[in-house]
Amino acid sequence: MTDIQDGPAGRIARLRSLMEKRGYDAVVVRDEANLRWMTGTMGVFDYTFEFPHAAFITHDACYLHTDSRYYNSFAENMPEGSPWQVDMDGFDIPGWVAQHALESRSRVVAIEDDMQLSFYQGILRGLEDRSIVASLPQMHGDIRRMRAIKDAEEIELMRHAQSITDLAFQHMLDYIKPGLTEKQIRTELESFMFNNGADSLAFGSIVASGPNTANPHAVSSDRVVQKGDFVLMDYGAGYRDYRSDMTRTVVLGEPTDEQRKIYDLVQRTHEECVKAIHGGVDGSDIHNLSVKIISDAGYGDYYGHGLGHGVGIDIHELPNFGRKSNIVEAGAVITVEPGVYLPGVGGIRLEDFGLVTEDGFEPFTASPHELQVIDC
Amino acid sequence: MTDIQDGPAGRIARLRSLMEKRGYDAVVVRDEANLRWMTGTMGVFDYTFEFPHAAFITHDACYLHTDSRYYNSFAENMPEGSPWQVDMDGFDIPGWVAQHALESRSRVVAIEDDMQLSFYQGILRGLEDRSIVASLPQMHGDIRRMRAIKDAEEIELMRHAQSITDLAFQHMLDYIKPGLTEKQIRTELESFMFNNGADSLAFGSIVASGPNTANPHAVSSDRVVQKGDFVLMDYGAGYRDYRSDMTRTVVLGEPTDEQRKIYDLVQRTHEECVKAIHGGVDGSDIHNLSVKIISDAGYGDYYGHGLGHGVGIDIHELPNFGRKSNIVEAGAVITVEPGVYLPGVGGIRLEDFGLVTEDGFEPFTASPHELQVIDC
Repeated sequence: MTDIQDGPAGRIARLRSLMEKRGYDAVVVRDEANLRWMTGTMGVFDYTFEFPHAAFITHDACYLHTDSRYYNSFAENMPEGSPWQVDMDGFDIPGWVAQHALESRSRVVAIEDDMQLSFYQGILRGLEDRSIVASLPQMHGDIRRMRAIKDAEEIELMRHAQSITDLAFQHMLDYIKPGLTEKQIRTELESFMFNNGADSLAFGSIVASGPNTANPHAVSSDRVVQKGDFVLMDYGAGYRDYRSDMTRTVVLGEPTDEQRKIYDLVQRTHEECVKAIHGGVDGSDIHNLSVKIISDAGYGDYYGHGLGHGVGIDIHELPNFGRKSNIVEAGAVITVEPGVYLPGVGGIRLEDFGLVTEDGFEPFTASPHELQVIDC
Repeated sequence: MTDIQDGPAGRIARLRSLMEKRGYDAVVVRDEANLRWMTGTMGVFDYTFEFPHAAFITHDACYLHTDSRYYNSFAENMPEGSPWQVDMDGFDIPGWVAQHALESRSRVVAIEDDMQLSFYQGILRGLEDRSIVASLPQMHGDIRRMRAIKDAEEIELMRHAQSITDLAFQHMLDYIKPGLTEKQIRTELESFMFNNGADSLAFGSIVASGPNTANPHAVSSDRVVQKGDFVLMDYGAGYRDYRSDMTRTVVLGEPTDEQRKIYDLVQRTHEECVKAIHGGVDGSDIHNLSVKIISDAGYGDYYGHGLGHGVGIDIHELPNFGRKSNIVEAGAVITVEPGVYLPGVGGIRLEDFGLVTEDGFEPFTASPHELQVIDC
C-alpha cells in the first residue's frame, strides 16, 4: 500500500501539492464525486439533483458552497476537525467563485475541464463584474487521477461493499431456478443487497440469461430462464458513497461442452491477467494480454470491451486496463473482467475487483471463479 | 391535457419547430435525460457512467452516437419506426459532431448550455480540423422547457411509478414500530418497492425520525424510533426511467397538541395551494400562497424551501413552485410539498405529485393526507 495520509485532510494535502507544482492560487471543483472525495462527507452529494455545490480551495482555506436543503447534513456529517467552511450565499454560484477569487487575491484559478459551459461563462462574467482578471487553466482530470490512488478509509469502504456483494451471490445460487424471469432475479438480487447493508446500488444491475448474455450491457427482460441457460449477473453494492463491482456467470444444469469451453477460457484469461498485475504496470499491457489469450483460443472477435476500470465513488474511475496506455499504480482499485460473447448463443464474463499492490493484485472479491452449476 | 403528439416522434417534432423558429440547422444533445426523452429508448441512458452518447439532429435526420457496450441495447429497445440512426464511430465524439456538421452543411449548430467545457472545445477543434465554420449558439434550457410538458406515455409511466409508491406507504404503516432504526425503515421501504415493480429508486430515500425530521434533507441514521416520534418518508420509485416523488409524515402513538397543530397547518397549506393551481398560473404565486399561509400561522421562519418542482426523467425538472416567476402550463407534472421544520423538535412535510390541467391539479398520489397514527 502506498504511504498516503488517510482521509480528507490527506486528500487536500495532495491537491495543494499539485497546486504548488502548477502555480495555481486556487482550484474550483464542481464534480460531485470530487467533492465527496475532498470533503469526506458521506450521503450528501447525490449526483442526480441540480448542482448546488462548488468548492473554492486556496493554499490556506477550503470553502464549500451549498444550499439550505443540504446545510444541516454537512453540519452533521462532516468529519471532526474538517478544514471546510460552508457557505450558503444565494443563487449565483459562479459569482460566489468570482467573489472568493477577489477576496483571496487568487489570479490563477484552476477549473475542471468537464465544468459546465454556462458555469464557466458565469465565472468570467463574475470576474468582469468585479473588475478583476484571473486566468482559468483547465485541469485535465488531475483530481480524478489523484482519486485513482485510494487511502485506507476508502479501501475499507469498498471491502465492505464487496462483502455484501459476495453474500448476495451465495444467496442467488440458492434462489435461481428455471421458471423465474430475468427481472425477478434482478429484483431478488437488489433487495437482498438492500436488506444486507447496502446504502444504494453500485449501478443498475445487469441480469441476463440465455442468448441475452451475449449483450454485454443487457437490460433485464421478462425472459423466463430455463435449463441449459447461462445466467450472467453484473452488479454491486453502494456503501457510504463507495461501490463494488462483480460479475459471475452461472449455468442452469450441466453445461454443454461449448459452454464449459468458453467458461474455462474466460476463467483462464482472468487468472493469467491477474498474475501479471503489479504496481507500475501499463494497463494496456494487461488488457493486451487478455486479448491475446482470447484471440489465441480463436474467440478474438467475441471480446470487444476493455479488461477493467478503476472503481471508487464513481463506478468508472481511473486507471484502466484498456487499449490506451496508462500506468496502474499500487493503491489503485480496479476490476478485472474478461468476457466472451457469442451472438445468438450466449456470453460469459468473470469479474473481480481489488487492490493493486507493489507486487500483485489483492482481490476484494471472495466468490469462487469456478463455474457454478445450479441443480435443476 | 395539451394536444401534443405522443412519444418520441412528437418530441422530435417539437424540437424541429423550435429549430425552425430560431434558425438552427442542427442541434447537439449530450444530456442523458434529454437523450432518453428524444429517443424514447428506456434502460440505456444510465447517467452515471462516462458519457458515450451524443445526438446530432437536423431538419431531416437524427444521428445518435453510442459505443459497443450500448449498441445492442439500442437495437433492442428503440421503439418501432424510430427515426434514429445509431453510429459507433470510435472515441472522438466531438469530432463526430463536427463531421456531421460538415456532411449536413449545418452552419448554425445549437448546443446545450450545460455541455462540458472540454466537449465544447473539442467541437471547436473538430470544426477547425475540417476547415469549416459554424456558430454554436447555446440553448438555455430549451429542451428542458419542452420536457416540462408531458405526453400521455410519460404520464402513464409516472402514474405507474406512483402506484408502487402508494403501495409501499400502505405497507410501511404496518411495518413501522418503536425499536426500529431509521436505516431499517429505509431498507424495508426500498426493498418493498423493488419487490413490487420498481426498476430503480427515484432518488435515495429520506427516512428521518424525531428531531431528525427537522432537517429537510436528512440522511437516515441508526437512531431508534420511539413512541411520540414523527417519522418522515420522502421517496419514490423509478419505472422505465421515469420517477415518482411523495412525502408522508406519520406519528408513533397519539400526537401531542403541538404535533397535531403543525401537521394540520401543513395539510391545510397543501390543500389550499392545490386549489389555486391551474394551467397558465405563475408558479411563484402558488409558492407565495404557501409562504403566506404558513407565515400567517406564525411558522414562517420554519419553512425554507420551494413548494414544488417538476418531475419526469429527472427528479427535479421544470417548472417550479418557487420564489422565481415561471408559468406552469397545463401538461406539467409537478410536486406540491409544503413543510414546517422546528429545530430540535421535528418537522412535517406533505407531498403529492400530479398533473396540472387547464382547470386544476390531478394528483397521481392516492395516499391519504390525514395524519396517520401508528398504534403503539
